[in-house]
This record gives sequence, C-alpha cells and structure tokens, in this order.
Amino acid sequence: MAKISGPTETARCIQSLIAVFQKYAGKDGYNCNLSKTEFLSFMNTELAAFTKNQKDPGVLDRMKKLDVSSDGQLDFPKFLNLIGGLAVACHDSFLKAVPSQKWT
Amino acid sequence: MAKISGPTETARCIQSLIAVFQKYAGKDGYNCNLSKTEFLSFMNTELAAFTKNQKDPGVLDRMKKLDVSSDGQLDFPKFLNLIGGLAVACHDSFLKAVPSQKWT
Repeated sequence: MAKISGPTETARCIQSLIAVFQKYAGKDGYNCNLSKTEFLSFMNTELAAFTKNQKDPGVLDRMKKLDVSSDGQLDFPKFLNLIGGLAVACHDSFLKAVPSQKWT
Repeated sequence: MAKISGPTETARCIQSLIAVFQKYAGKDGYNCNLSKTEFLSFMNTELAAFTKNQKDPGVLDRMKKLDVSSDGQLDFPKFLNLIGGLAVACHDSFLKAVPSQKWT
C-alpha cells in the first residue's frame, strides 16, 4: 500500500523561500521583483540578526552590490543568490567548527 | 524592553538546507561533498515527488549535469545551485498561475 507523506524538508525550504520573496516583493503590487524599499524591509526583518553578526566582509559586500543593482530591482534568482551566499558562509563556519573526517 | 523572538523564516531555511546537505553528505564520513551515491540518495528521498512531476527539461538537464560532474562530487554551493534552479522553476510556475499586477 502506498505511503502518503508530507513534503520533504527540501520541498518545504523551496516553498518557504518563494513565500518569503512573495511576502516582500508583493508589497508594492508588483510581485516579480523586490524594489529597494522592499529589499531593505526584507533585510531589516528577516536577516537583521544575521547581518549584525556577520563577520565575512565578502557576504556584506555581496549584499551591498545587490542592493544597488543597476535597475534598483532584485528578482527571485538574485534573491536566491543572496540567500545562497549567506548559507555558504554559515556552512563554512559549521565545517570549521565540526571538521570533516574522511575514511580512507 | 527588547523583544525576544525565534529565528526568521529565512534563517530557518538556511539552517534546514545545511542540515539536509549534512545529513546526506555525512553518510560516507566526509561531510564536505555529496558523492554520487549520496547525491542519488538525496534525489530519490528529498526530491522524488518533484522530479517525477517536473516538466521543465532545463531543470532535469541541470540535475544530470550536476550528477556527472568531473570529480563525481557535489559541494555545498553546487547543491544550493541545484535547489535554486528548482526554486526558480517553481516560482516561475507560481507567477504564471498568479500573474503580477503593477500599479502604475
């Protein structure tokens, strides 16, 4: 008999990232992009704690570059690029704290 | 008085993506990369429903390319690139279903 299960953790993350983007991007009624105001609202609400504790200047530089993109708009792929940069920085910190072991 | 709150939705997503990657990458004791076996285990468990219903050949092509990367290993940035590709495909479907309205 087929087992019926809910969405996986990865699927839930994809849904959440879309929902968060839409929550902020839709504030001005145009839900394809984050305007500069929407982007700052997102940063100050969702990532306030992270940016405050962020020591990696590369990540903060990346945010600033995104913030001042030529057309002042941040689309969903660029938004994911930002989240991905933060995730890689967090993962690098994790790997330093918990060194990997290779069984050879 | 300062308000104490839990992690934001975005922070939870970053934590979950790291946890999922570590869950599968750590199976062979080397937690920096997904081996081909670990990648297939991840795909078949976490993304089975998604890949079954995926109609966009570009996304599936991207997965195949990642799957046969030169060294047979998938690091965390490449892993996020895959998840990002899936999220963009899902977001595009969402925008088609719910067209945006620009207030001009």
